[in-house]
Amino acid sequence: MTETPGTQPEKPESIDRRGFSRRLLAGTAAAAIGPAVLGPAQAASAAPASPEAAPTASAAAVRRARAGGEVRHMKLFAERLADDQIGYGLEKGKATVPGPLIELVEGDTLHVEFENTTDVAVSLHPHGVDYDRANDGTKMNDSVVEPGKKRTYTWRTHAPGKRKDGTYRPGSAGYWHYHDHVVGTEHGTGGIRAGLYGPVVVRREGDILPDAQFTVVFNDMTINNLPKGPDFKVTVNDRVEIIMITHGEYYHTFHMHGHRWADNRTGLLEGPGDPSRIIDNKITGPADSFGFQIIAGEEAGAGAWMYHCHVQSHSDMGMAGLLLVAKPDGTVPGHDGHDH
Amino acid sequence: MTETPGTQPEKPESIDRRGFSRRLLAGTAAAAIGPAVLGPAQAASAAPASPEAAPTASAAAVRRARAGGEVRHMKLFAERLADDQIGYGLEKGKATVPGPLIELVEGDTLHVEFENTTDVAVSLHPHGVDYDRANDGTKMNDSVVEPGKKRTYTWRTHAPGKRKDGTYRPGSAGYWHYHDHVVGTEHGTGGIRAGLYGPVVVRREGDILPDAQFTVVFNDMTINNLPKGPDFKVTVNDRVEIIMITHGEYYHTFHMHGHRWADNRTGLLEGPGDPSRIIDNKITGPADSFGFQIIAGEEAGAGAWMYHCHVQSHSDMGMAGLLLVAKPDGTVPGHDGHDH
Amino acid sequence: MTETPGTQPEKPESIDRRGFSRRLLAGTAAAAIGPAVLGPAQAASAAPASPEAAPTASAAAVRRARAGGEVRHMKLFAERLADDQIGYGLEKGKATVPGPLIELVEGDTLHVEFENTTDVAVSLHPHGVDYDRANDGTKMNDSVVEPGKKRTYTWRTHAPGKRKDGTYRPGSAGYWHYHDHVVGTEHGTGGIRAGLYGPVVVRREGDILPDAQFTVVFNDMTINNLPKGPDFKVTVNDRVEIIMITHGEYYHTFHMHGHRWADNRTGLLEGPGDPSRIIDNKITGPADSFGFQIIAGEEAGAGAWMYHCHVQSHSDMGMAGLLLVAKPDGTVPGHDGHDH
Repeated sequence: MTETPGTQPEKPESIDRRGFSRRLLAGTAAAAIGPAVLGPAQAASAAPASPEAAPTASAAAVRRARAGGEVRHMKLFAERLADDQIGYGLEKGKATVPGPLIELVEGDTLHVEFENTTDVAVSLHPHGVDYDRANDGTKMNDSVVEPGKKRTYTWRTHAPGKRKDGTYRPGSAGYWHYHDHVVGTEHGTGGIRAGLYGPVVVRREGDILPDAQFTVVFNDMTINNLPKGPDFKVTVNDRVEIIMITHGEYYHTFHMHGHRWADNRTGLLEGPGDPSRIIDNKITGPADSFGFQIIAGEEAGAGAWMYHCHVQSHSDMGMAGLLLVAKPDGTVPGHDGHDH
Repeated sequence: MTETPGTQPEKPESIDRRGFSRRLLAGTAAAAIGPAVLGPAQAASAAPASPEAAPTASAAAVRRARAGGEVRHMKLFAERLADDQIGYGLEKGKATVPGPLIELVEGDTLHVEFENTTDVAVSLHPHGVDYDRANDGTKMNDSVVEPGKKRTYTWRTHAPGKRKDGTYRPGSAGYWHYHDHVVGTEHGTGGIRAGLYGPVVVRREGDILPDAQFTVVFNDMTINNLPKGPDFKVTVNDRVEIIMITHGEYYHTFHMHGHRWADNRTGLLEGPGDPSRIIDNKITGPADSFGFQIIAGEEAGAGAWMYHCHVQSHSDMGMAGLLLVAKPDGTVPGHDGHDH
Repeated sequence: MTETPGTQPEKPESIDRRGFSRRLLAGTAAAAIGPAVLGPAQAASAAPASPEAAPTASAAAVRRARAGGEVRHMKLFAERLADDQIGYGLEKGKATVPGPLIELVEGDTLHVEFENTTDVAVSLHPHGVDYDRANDGTKMNDSVVEPGKKRTYTWRTHAPGKRKDGTYRPGSAGYWHYHDHVVGTEHGTGGIRAGLYGPVVVRREGDILPDAQFTVVFNDMTINNLPKGPDFKVTVNDRVEIIMITHGEYYHTFHMHGHRWADNRTGLLEGPGDPSRIIDNKITGPADSFGFQIIAGEEAGAGAWMYHCHVQSHSDMGMAGLLLVAKPDGTVPGHDGHDH
C-alpha cells in the first residue's frame, strides 16, 4: 500500500503513508485520502509492513473509502517485455503483467498520460468507468496511440443518484479492468495475449478497504501470463481483496480453498436482507471481472490454500497458485517444511 | 414501436399509435395499453419517429407498463428463407431472424395461432412463461406442428403473490425467448441453427418501458444468423432496451462499450439497497437470456459504440456490431465521415 | 427422506420418521429434528411414500429447517464400482454416483469417518463448509487417505453474524458439494471423472424444506456419470428440490421445462424486494453448484417435463432426462401410454 510513482494526488491531504495509516486507525475516515494507484506487486509485498494490516488493527476497526470527487493524474507506459510480452507500467522500465492497479472512488476523475514506447500502435480501453468517444481506446474512434506518441485518456466516475425523470442511476463502483484494443486485431487480441491488461477498482464512499490486494487474471491458459499461478502471502486475519479478471479465448471457473464470498457488487454481504449467493467457485469468460474480500484464514486457519481454475485440465496444466496465510510469526503451517 | 400485424389486442383501449404515445406522455400510465407485439426490425426503425423517444420527452417522464390481465391473440408463421434459413414471422412472406418480439405484462394470456408453411415439422417452445404439456413444443409431448398444419399455442403469465402455504410465488416477468424444439433433432438443433428463435419480454406492472428495443442473439458464431453483427441507431438520451439471447454450441461474453447495466431481473437498480453487480460484460451460454435498459450516450455522449462478444476470436471473426448514438440532428460523431 | 445409515444424530430429539412428519405437519417447526443425511436414490424413492409430500400437506404448511448447532457423525466409504467408476457410499458395497446427499443446518458440525476401500489414495474435499488444513482433502495439505486407511474429516458451519469490527459475516448456507482431490492428478481429475463427487446442502434455520430432492451432476458429457440423464418421479404439488452441480471439462447450461426458479441463494424469492432474476436456464462450469425448489407442475400440470443441458450437441448426445410429475393417482399424462 505504499504510494507509488504516478499517483501524485493534487490535494494537500496527500500525506505520507504512516500518517495516513495512523489517522485511519483513529477512525477519522472522513479525513482519509483516497485509495492509492497501486501496482499489484507493491500492494502484495507492502501489506505485511503496513500497521493497519495487522490482525489486531483489522479487528479493531475497518477502514472505509473516502468521499469521491478528486481529480487525479497518473502516467502510464506501454513497453515491450521479455518473451514477446508487452506490459503497462507506472514508470519506464517497470511495466508489469498485469498492469498497475488503478483505484478510484465514485465521483473521481482520472487523467492518464499514456506513452507508447513500443513499435506498434497500442491503446487503453477501460471497462466500467465513464468515457467518451475520444477515450474509447479503439481505432474506430481514433483513440489509439502510435509508436513513440503520447495521449491523455480521461476516465470519469459517478455516484448513484436520481435522474430528472425520477429513475435511479447506478454508480460506477465495481471491480473493473482496462486493456489494449488495437494490437494484433481491432479488438486487441494480440495486445491482451501479450499482457496489456490491468485491474481497476471503483469504490463507493464508505466501502470497506482491504489490507492487501491481489489481481488474478485468467488469460488464455495462464494466470497473469505466467506458466503457473503466483503465490500470494498474507497474515491470518488480514482483510484480503482478490480482483479476478478473465481474458482471451476460454471460459474458466475460479475456485479458492477454505474461503467464500458473496456473488454481488462488493463480494460482501451488507446484512441479512441481501439474497446474494455465497460462493467459492464462479464461472467467468473473457472480459468478465469481479472482486471480493476475505478475512484470511477466518474459518480455515493459517496454511497454504490453493486457488485455481476448476476446469480440470486447466488446473492440471498449471492454472493454480497458493494463498499463503501465515501465522503472526510469519510461518505458514504445512508449507516449506515449517511444521512437517 | 409501430403496431404490427398480428397484435390485435381484444380490448377497446387498443388505440392508434399516436394517441397511445400522447396519452403516455401525459403521464396517464394507468390508462395506457400494454406493450405491443413487435418485430425487432420495426422497433428499431420506428423509434426515432416516435415522439416519446425524443430526449426531452424521456427526461420529463418515464412510461410504465400497464396492469396485466389481457387476453391477446396473434398469428405466427414458420417459413423457409434464403440460404437454408427458417424464420418465424407475423405475416406470410415476412419471417425474420430473430422472430418477432413478443411482449406481455404479468397476468396476460397469449394465444399464438401458429402455421407451419415449411416442409418439415416445426414447433414453438417458450422459456419463462406458463404452459402446459400441450404447449411444450416438443415431440415427446405431442405439441409440434406438421408441414402445412396449424396449432394454437397458449402461454399464460402471472404476477408474484403468496401461495396458500404462505410462501412467496415469483412472477413471470423477465427477458425470455422462444425457439423450435423439433427440427433436426428432438431438441431443435437444426431449427435453432436455421433461425427459428425470437425474444419474449414479460413485464411487471409499473416496469419502465423503453423508447427503442433491439434483440441480439449470439447463435453459434453469428449474431442474429448474420456474418457480422447488425448496427442499431438511436438518438442520445433514448432509453434503449437490449434483449440478449444465446443459442447453439458455444459460450460467449456480451460486452457493450460506453454503457453499463445491473445484473438483475430488469437490468435496472431500484435503489441503493439493491446489491446487484453493475456490469458491462456477461458470460452466457445457449438458451440463457437477459435484458437491460441504458440511456443512450448517458455518460459517453453521441458516437459509434461497439457491442461485441468479448471472446477474442469470436469478435475478430465478426461477432461485433455498433450502437450508433446520434445527436439530435441525426448525425453520429466520428461515424461515416460526419466529423472527421 | 428415510433416515439412512450414518446419520445418527446425537440428540434425543432424534425421533422416528413418522413422528417427525406428524409433528411437522402440526406446524411445530421449532421442535423438528434437522435434515437427514440422505442418499439421493433414497430421497427420490422415499418421497412419494412420505405423508408430508402429499399435495394437501404441502399446501397446508411448509416444513422449515430446525436450529443449527448439532454435532453429527457419519461414515463414508470410497469404493470401486463397475465400469472403472469409483463412488462414495454410506455403507460398504453401497457406493453411488453421485455420492450421498449431506444436509446440515448452519451451526452444525459434521465428523465424517472416511474409509478408503480402493487401491489408490482418495480424499474428500468439500466446498462451502468451514474446514482447516487437515480437512482440505489435498495431497499438499497431507489430508488424503491411502488405500485401506481411515481418516475422520471434520466440517463446521456457521450462521451469519457480526464480526468484532462491525462487518457482516455471511453464513454457510448454500448448495455445495464434495469431491476427491487426489485421484489421477493433484486436482482429482481422475477421481471426479470416475464418480467421486456428491452434494452438500447447508440450510439456514427457518429455510423451507422440500418434499423430494434430486441431484443432477453434469460431469463431462454425462449426467451423474450415466450415458443418459435419469428420470425423477414426483407428484403434482410436491415441493421438489434440485441440486445442480457441474464437474469436469466443459461448460453447460441447465434448463428445465415448465418450471422456473430464482437465481439467488435458495432459488426462492423471499418477497417483492428481492431483485434476483427468475430463470429457467443457467450457465455453469466445473465445481459451480446451485439449487432451487419448484412446486411440481405448479403452472404446468402433471406430465413429463424435460430437463437438459441446452448446449445443443450436449442434449442431442444424451444430457437430458425427465421430471415425471404424476397426478395424485400416480399416472403421468402423456408418458408411457397413460393417456395416448
